[in-house]
Parts: sequence; structure tokens; C-alpha cells
Amino acid sequence: MDCIAVLTSGGDAPGMNAAIRAVVRTALGRGARVFGCQRGYDGLLDDELAEMRSTDVGGIIGSGGTILRTARSKRFRQPEQRREAGRNLRERGIEGLVVIGGDGTLKGARALCDECDFPIMGVPASIDNDLPCTDASIGFDTAVNTALDAVDRVRDTAYSHERVFVIEVMGRRNGFIAVEAGLAGGAEAILIPEVPYDLQNVCDRLKAGHRRGKRSSIIVVAEGAASAVEIHDLIREKTGYDARYLVLGHMQRGGHPTAFDRVLATRLGAAAANRLLNGTRGEMVGVRGNQVISTPFEIISRTERRIDPERLLLAEVMAQ
Amino acid sequence: MDCIAVLTSGGDAPGMNAAIRAVVRTALGRGARVFGCQRGYDGLLDDELAEMRSTDVGGIIGSGGTILRTARSKRFRQPEQRREAGRNLRERGIEGLVVIGGDGTLKGARALCDECDFPIMGVPASIDNDLPCTDASIGFDTAVNTALDAVDRVRDTAYSHERVFVIEVMGRRNGFIAVEAGLAGGAEAILIPEVPYDLQNVCDRLKAGHRRGKRSSIIVVAEGAASAVEIHDLIREKTGYDARYLVLGHMQRGGHPTAFDRVLATRLGAAAANRLLNGTRGEMVGVRGNQVISTPFEIISRTERRIDPERLLLAEVMAQ
Amino acid sequence: MDCIAVLTSGGDAPGMNAAIRAVVRTALGRGARVFGCQRGYDGLLDDELAEMRSTDVGGIIGSGGTILRTARSKRFRQPEQRREAGRNLRERGIEGLVVIGGDGTLKGARALCDECDFPIMGVPASIDNDLPCTDASIGFDTAVNTALDAVDRVRDTAYSHERVFVIEVMGRRNGFIAVEAGLAGGAEAILIPEVPYDLQNVCDRLKAGHRRGKRSSIIVVAEGAASAVEIHDLIREKTGYDARYLVLGHMQRGGHPTAFDRVLATRLGAAAANRLLNGTRGEMVGVRGNQVISTPFEIISRTERRIDPERLLLAEVMAQ
Amino acid sequence: MDCIAVLTSGGDAPGMNAAIRAVVRTALGRGARVFGCQRGYDGLLDDELAEMRSTDVGGIIGSGGTILRTARSKRFRQPEQRREAGRNLRERGIEGLVVIGGDGTLKGARALCDECDFPIMGVPASIDNDLPCTDASIGFDTAVNTALDAVDRVRDTAYSHERVFVIEVMGRRNGFIAVEAGLAGGAEAILIPEVPYDLQNVCDRLKAGHRRGKRSSIIVVAEGAASAVEIHDLIREKTGYDARYLVLGHMQRGGHPTAFDRVLATRLGAAAANRLLNGTRGEMVGVRGNQVISTPFEIISRTERRIDPERLLLAEVMAQ
Repeated sequence: MDCIAVLTSGGDAPGMNAAIRAVVRTALGRGARVFGCQRGYDGLLDDELAEMRSTDVGGIIGSGGTILRTARSKRFRQPEQRREAGRNLRERGIEGLVVIGGDGTLKGARALCDECDFPIMGVPASIDNDLPCTDASIGFDTAVNTALDAVDRVRDTAYSHERVFVIEVMGRRNGFIAVEAGLAGGAEAILIPEVPYDLQNVCDRLKAGHRRGKRSSIIVVAEGAASAVEIHDLIREKTGYDARYLVLGHMQRGGHPTAFDRVLATRLGAAAANRLLNGTRGEMVGVRGNQVISTPFEIISRTERRIDPERLLLAEVMAQ
Repeated sequence: MDCIAVLTSGGDAPGMNAAIRAVVRTALGRGARVFGCQRGYDGLLDDELAEMRSTDVGGIIGSGGTILRTARSKRFRQPEQRREAGRNLRERGIEGLVVIGGDGTLKGARALCDECDFPIMGVPASIDNDLPCTDASIGFDTAVNTALDAVDRVRDTAYSHERVFVIEVMGRRNGFIAVEAGLAGGAEAILIPEVPYDLQNVCDRLKAGHRRGKRSSIIVVAEGAASAVEIHDLIREKTGYDARYLVLGHMQRGGHPTAFDRVLATRLGAAAANRLLNGTRGEMVGVRGNQVISTPFEIISRTERRIDPERLLLAEVMAQ
Repeated sequence: MDCIAVLTSGGDAPGMNAAIRAVVRTALGRGARVFGCQRGYDGLLDDELAEMRSTDVGGIIGSGGTILRTARSKRFRQPEQRREAGRNLRERGIEGLVVIGGDGTLKGARALCDECDFPIMGVPASIDNDLPCTDASIGFDTAVNTALDAVDRVRDTAYSHERVFVIEVMGRRNGFIAVEAGLAGGAEAILIPEVPYDLQNVCDRLKAGHRRGKRSSIIVVAEGAASAVEIHDLIREKTGYDARYLVLGHMQRGGHPTAFDRVLATRLGAAAANRLLNGTRGEMVGVRGNQVISTPFEIISRTERRIDPERLLLAEVMAQ
Repeated sequence: MDCIAVLTSGGDAPGMNAAIRAVVRTALGRGARVFGCQRGYDGLLDDELAEMRSTDVGGIIGSGGTILRTARSKRFRQPEQRREAGRNLRERGIEGLVVIGGDGTLKGARALCDECDFPIMGVPASIDNDLPCTDASIGFDTAVNTALDAVDRVRDTAYSHERVFVIEVMGRRNGFIAVEAGLAGGAEAILIPEVPYDLQNVCDRLKAGHRRGKRSSIIVVAEGAASAVEIHDLIREKTGYDARYLVLGHMQRGGHPTAFDRVLATRLGAAAANRLLNGTRGEMVGVRGNQVISTPFEIISRTERRIDPERLLLAEVMAQ
């Protein structure tokens, strides 16, 4: 294989640029050519591909977002469009593709790989950390630290004004960010979609804390579990405390990637390019302990990442 | 004067702790005693005063919030309550008071000072920067940097997804945070309460930028000018672009104070204590260039801080 | 077991406070009493023990350093002193001990545990990350991000002045910080004690980069591999480039722990306390993937943590 | 005037890029053309000039260093070389020049302006803050916050190990960074070139602090006042305390500019371009309170910026 392409798709995640850089420089280092595709799968359909040199990825290891831009392509969900994408790639002389993204991105990759018999390797990048078969996804560590920074700041003002703050973090279908940021921020309660919660119990714990002299509290809520506004209304109602809320939103997507995310992205991007050039296809790379591993898309699609419910209990013990 | 008290009141601001430390250590250094009053003026009414030693303010110069806690006291608005506060102070043997806070705090200080003939010095602390007669208020520089950090993060994701983002920052009656964070963040438009804006004109500029190839934009809105949700709705409607919004909220109050705010707080806290112990009363300290100045409450109450409208024009030129 | 103690020993690491908090609150949550021992093993010898309540560890999850202070005890290396320490603990009614620290700390714990038949659990905390039998030690992630921040800053000025910068990071016996910070910072070369390096080869690569148009470079050196001053002298001599150096030093020990280190410390501190109270002894807790594990001191002492040499090769490929 | 050039020269400072952006976009906004000159005055001699478009300065407002690179030109000190530079500019059709830099840069600008009768405006950028006739120079606020971050980190480990730390910050001829970072970091002593210090007195104060229970201390030293190594040796000798040292070095030059520096750079860059295009020449722009002012090079060269010695006294009072 002498010529590959790389794209980023779905929600952007800090570290995507470091992964692009790793794919490009690994391929160039092995004498292959590399094309960058703009705007995810849409760029394949619109033939927005440009050859990349080493200097094109210079200085991007530490920048947030993705220089290749990204999109959630509706067109690519149609089989005929995917065949068009395969044709475009082949006409350019491109023999393999590295896709960097989350759950939806990998589904698209699997379809393209299977239907067009086109070699693809996936790199897990998702601030939600919802991909299985890897200890971590690119962007998660940065997003957690961004959320934690907000929790730390809010705690200052919560303490000063003796308030209860409800902070809503990203996580539509899971509570990974909420659990890590909540545990690291010393949150008094963490609400996530995977585990049913009892708001009365939360309020009882707030009251018990108040009796022990605790005058301020932080509740971290994953967006998929509840809305911060609603929770804060209910807490006001049930406890009478001065409650406020904050929705962190898209801020969690941006920022300079942490060391962890940069190293992870560099290792995974390089591994994906190397394996693709060596003939592997239809797999997603990942880390397991200190090892880089690789798992077929088919297994990825049948596996679900589970949250460790012990961490919620741990958070409760710690809040005492 | 051998014994003074210090309190923080109103919205908390990063650097209040550095100011408390400066008041306490300056007074102790001159052989005076110092009491810390909890929860702003409410603490005066409830006699929540405790003597402070040097170690009580050790290690707090860099922490956000206020160790003395703060509140917006409703009771203190009543003259009879203020007289009660004056009596409480005198019964403790306290001969002077330093209050650290914003506009409302200083109004209360003026009333107490005048009605009870009690010596008070004010220290300007307000993330909104709305106090006149000083180049800067404690907490403003930190709040601007916090808001800027969010703008920077959002720009990463705005660029990657080619979106327009509307970011709402604090500022109910003024646009100081909005202007500084917007200008520093390279915002394409800044909406503030002091200057009427024309949303059609903003949209026209977005479209003109789009024609020049600009695919993402940031609009910073002071909460007193408009709601980010509404602006984002209108932009979607008028331009058809993919617009999103973010409300920074209370995050802007917390966090470790910047070097500027710590130095400002230290200088002003020390100056307030020194002047109070020297017999000055009824004034607010402030900085003018490199000088510490002091202005009677009466002048403060008649003066208004004005925003520099040239900065909005500058932001427009820069966005081209 | 109804009463335990906790201490921190050896070089301080960000996250130690989070671990102390976890030990204290876990024990209290189970109805046990906890004593905090000051200054590491010296505090055991000098009987500097004080009972801790839940509020004593309030608000410390995010602070650097250790509220229990730490030391490298010379006295504790003598068997008779260790017996004295064991007697002191027993006289206080303390039945078990959690020690938080690195290599030397665990050696001392093993000796005390064996010689005095005293139940001890170890928690790995070391910015050098040199402890085996755990994926990570507390403080390492924070130290790497601190070093990376310095690398990022230096790159700005290296680029502007077209200079080669040699940055010396901590790591007397290993290159873990150097490899992670170097890889994440896009360093052109990384020198570590575990792998022999050829400076002529490094210079040849700098020259080759220069021919390709690269005008600035960063070399990260672990203190155990070489001195930054010497390397910078040799590079000047061999290449004629304008080289500068920087020794990061103790800055790497401090700072607020990252989310990763806070969560790791909370989990490991809680696990150590729980296992100790359940009757386990003479083991160090650790993480393996998502699991908390526990390994006997005896195995720890016979195992060595090895650096992954592939990361150095990866760094070379990435620097092209 | 229809065509100007811009360059950065001397030591790089965070915010230089924001100033370049402001010059470029202000000029373009007025219909003028702008050339960027690489590597400071050397680029004028080597004719390294390239025309700049608005997109060339897109996204650089927040980056450290300077995209135009910088140098300390030896050749430019010779009058015949400066005449050559003037000729090069005129041959290109360039009618005016904005130089961004410190003391030496402005000296060169004055010589070129006078000898070749070439219109030049200066923009003060220097992390040392040593330029007169402006409240602040671009880069100073960022450098102080970088140094403060290091002081904060070191304090964590100083506290934990009960050590005295001597931290050397930049400032060959003045102590501006030392005073601000020391005051903001709560340093126990600050040594600067402008004020003679008595090390015995410093040691006496350390001992007095020790007697009051203070177990750790920070001493901030400007490089022009003393070497951190020497001071730390002397302190060890005179007090017997466990002293360590740290030299911050070039790290202080890099990093993302703070909000303050970005706004300052934007205002000053725009003002310099506007005034140049309006016919002013031979002046340096600056800020005084909220006003942008402009001062002839000749007055700049005769004026000296003085440190406020009261801040050293304030630091002493605060350290008690």
C-alpha cells in the first residue's frame, strides 16, 4: 500500500490533531503518500482531499479541534453515497483510510469497509469515552480536566455564598465525564444515565451534610441523566437551599489536549497507519494497559463500554 | 485606633482573600488587633466576628472566593439594623471597619459610616469592574481571563464544525467583561448593554465574513445586553448558519486570582488598613496608574464608570 | 481493626492530599478512628500523631503537596528505630498504617511490617512513576503535564528565535517523565538513563531537520541521563546552532493534581484503607486497567518497572 | 501612505502576534498594503519581506512567540547597514514601518527614522517591562503570571518538605517581574538589582519566621540582582535550613498571552498603524490609564522606568 487518506468525523475531540499528525508522519516515514480529507465523510463525497506534507502537521500536536474539520454526515448513511465515496478514493489512487472519531464514525467506517471492500483502520476519539475495546478514547482526559476546572471554580463561589450548585456536563448516553469530574472535584452527588437516582435521597444527604456543618455542595449531572435546571429547581423546592446551576456545554470539546491525550493520540495514530500499511483492515486500534491493541469493527459493534458503578459509591463515601 | 474589623460582601470576586490577608497583616504589623466578620453585613448583625491572627490568612493569597464568606444582606438595608451593627462593633471594642466588595457593599458602608459615625474604608472588589475612581476592581482581571479561556476553547470546536457560537458572559448592567474577553478572544461581534446593537448588521457581517471564507465565528454577549439563547435563535433564523450558544455563568466568579488581582488586592487591602488606622474614613481606595488613591464615598456614589466605545469599533476592525 | 494511621513519606507528589482524604474518609465511614502522622516516618519516631476528623481533609482534594508534610527519614533506616516506631503506634492504640509514597517509602513499610509484625498497606505516589505492579503512580500525570507546559512555552520562544532548547526534567533513574513530556511536546530528541544515546546522531538529526527547513528544536533530557548544560554545550560545539537550556527542577513536584491523579489517589487511598481494615497487610495497592489490585511488598521489591523503548522510536518518527 | 511594513525584534514577548495582527488588519481596513518582515532588522537587510493578507494573521491572537520571528541584529548597529535597510524598504514601495519590541529595538528604530528620514512607529513589547512612557509593555503580564505559576507550584513542595526555595526570575537590569511575581506569590523576600539587599537581614527574617512556626519560605531573585545558586548556598550556610533553588529561564518568554496582553497588544498595534498612516512618525505608542498615548523616541531615550520601592516594603509586611 503506497497511498492512504485520513479524516476526522463526528464530534471533535482534543487530540484529534495529534492523531492526524501521527498518521501523516508515520505514513511519510514509511515512504507512503497521505491525503487529508476535509469535513469527515462529507469530504469523501465532495472529493475534498489534498495531499499532506510533514510541515502541514507541524506545530499542531498541542492544538484543540481538528485541522481537517469534522462533520456528522447525513449523506454517508446511504449505501449509494458510500459506494460513491469508495470510488472517489480509488480514483485518487488512495488504497487505505484512517478514520478518527467516535461511535458513529466507526459505524460508517465498517459499512464503507465491508460494502466497498476498502481497507480502513479506526482510531477512537470521543470526549464521551464511550468506545469499547480500549482503556481510553482520545479527548476524554482533556474534557474531564476542563469540566474539573469548572467544578473547582464553582466550588470557590459555592463556598463563599453557601450555595448548592448543579453542574451539567456532557454525556448524552453515559456518565463517564460526570463520574470522573465529580469524583475528582469532590462532588457531593453525581447523577448519570446508567444508574437510576433518587433525588429525595440526594436532598436527604444534602440536609445531613448541612447538619454536620457543610454549607455548600456540588452536584454533577450528566446531560443524559437530567437537566441541571430541573434538578436545581427540585433541590430548591425540597430543601429550601439557595441552589444555582451551570451548563458547561461545548466548552468541554475545546482546549489544548493534555499530555495523556497527546501521547495516546500519537501512539494510536501511528499504530493505525502502520497496521493499515501492513495490510490490516476493518479494525479499531486501542490501548490495554501499556499495549496497543486492535479489535475488528464487528466486535466493537457488539461490545458496550460499561461504567464502574463502584465509583458512584466511592463518591458518596468521600462526600461524608 | 487599635482594633479594626474586615468583611467581604456582595458577589464574591477572586482576590478577596488576598485583600483580607493584606488588611489583617497590615493591621497586625502596626500592632492593632483585627476581627474577621463572617457573611458580610449579616455577620455584623449576628455578631459573627472572630479575632484573626497572621496564620489565619496564611496560604490564602492564591485561593478564589473568600474565607470570610459573603452575602447580599437584606436586613442591612434598614437603618435600625445598621444602627444595631454599629453598636455590635463598638461593644466589641472595634473602632474601624474595612469592607471589601462592589457597588452595593459601598452603599451600605456609606450609610453605616454616616448614620453611626463609624470609620469605614472601602476596597473595590467586583468581577464586573463597575466601580468608578479606580483603574480596576479586584477580580475583574481574573474573570476576564476565565471568560477568555472559554472563548478560546469554544473557538476550537467552532472552527472544527464551522459553527457560529454565541457566548454569554457576566455583566448585568455593563459590558466590561464582554468587551475585554471578546477583544482578547478575537470575537467577531460583542454585544453590551451600554451600546445599542443591530442584529441585522451583525448577521450581515457574519455573511460578509462567510463570503471571504470565514467558516466560524464567535459572538460575545454581556448578560445585560441580550440572552445568548435568543441571539443564537435569531442568527439561525436570519443566516441559516449552524449556531450554538453557551452561558458561562458562575464559573466566572471562581478560580485562583491572577497576578494582577493578587497584587492589586494586596496593595489596596494594605492601603485601606493603613489609612483607616491613620484616621481616614468614608473613602474607597483605588489605583490610578501606579498610584494608590482614595476617594470619598460621596464622590463614588455620584460617579459612573463608562465603557470605552472605541473598543467595540476596534473589535469590528480586527474581525475583518 | 478500629484505629489506623496514615502518613506520606519521600518526595512529595500532587495527589497525596487526595489520597490522605480518601484514607481518612473511608476509615471514618466504616466507623474506625484515623490518626495523621506528620513528616513521614520521622513523625512516627517523634510521636507526631493527631487524630483526624472529616473536616480536616475538607477542600484538600485539589491541593498540591501534602498536609501531613513529608520527609526522607534517615533514622528510620535503623532497625531499632523502626521497633520504636512500632511501639509508638501500638501505645497509641493504632492497629494499622497506610503509607503513601514511592520506592523508599515502601521499603521502609516492608521492614516495619515484617520486623514489628505491624499491618501496613502501601499507596504508590511518585512523580517518577517508578513503582511496578500498577499502571500508574499518583503524581506522575500531573508532573508530566507540568513539564509539558514548560515544553510548550519554550517552543514558542525557540521558534521565534530559531534556537535549539535542551530541557532537563526529573528522573534520576528513569525516563518516564522525559518520554511522556517529550512525546507530548513533539520533542526532536529524548535522552533517558535506560537507553544509551549517541549525541552525534542527535546532532546529525538536528542538521537534517535544519536542511528540511526546521529552524528550532527541543531536546528533552531526564536528569539521570545527562545534564542539560552539558548537552547544550556539546550541541553548540558540534552544530554551531544557537542552543539554550532549562532545568525544570522542583516545579515539577507542585501544582494542583490533574483529574487523573485525583481519581487515582481517591481510589487507591480508599482501597488501601478498606483492605487494611479488612485484614490485608504487607501489600501495595495499584491499578491494572480499570481494576484496583494489590501486590505483596515482597513481589514489589523484586519487580522493576520498565520503560517502553518503542516510545523513543515513535518520538523519532514523529520528529521528521 | 499606502504601504507599510511591520517587524518584531529583540527578545520575544507573548502578545507580539496579537500586535502584528492588529497592525495588519488596521492597515488593510484602511485600504493600505502591509508587508511582514522576518527576523527583525536582519530581515530588512536581507529583504525578507512578504505581503500579508488578513488570513495570514487569523488565529494568532492567542499564540505565544512571533510568527515573524525575531532576532537581535548586530549588523543593524552599523549606520551603512541601516541606510541599506532604508533603501530596501523604499525600493519595495514601503512608506512606513511599525517595529514591535523593547529597548534595543526602539533605539534601532530611532536611528533608522532619523538617519534615513523614514517614518517609524514603535510598539512596546518586553517581558521585562522596562520601557518608560507606558503603564505596561506587551508580554509583561503574561511573564509575571508564568513566574507566579512556578512560585505557586514550588510553594506546595516547599511546604511539604519544610524547605527554603530561591527562585530566579528574568530581569537583568530591573526587578519588575521579581516584584510582581514575588508579591503575588507571597514571597518572604524579593531581591532586585535596583535596591541593595542585605542577605544577613534576609536570613534573620527567615529565622524569625521559623521561630513563629513558619517552616517554609520562598525568596524571589531577579537574575540581575544575584544568582539563585549563590543565594541558596549562602542561606544554607547562614541558617542551616534545607534550601533549594530554581532558575525559571526562558520558560517565562513563552505561553499564550493573557487577556491583558492581548487587549494591550491589539490596542497598541492598531494605534501605531493608525498614527503612522495618519502621518505621525518617530514615536512609541503606550497606555496611560485608559488612554492610548504616543511619545517621541527622543523622550523615550531620555526617560527611565523606575520600580516602586514601596512594593518591597509591602512584601516584607505581608510576609510576617
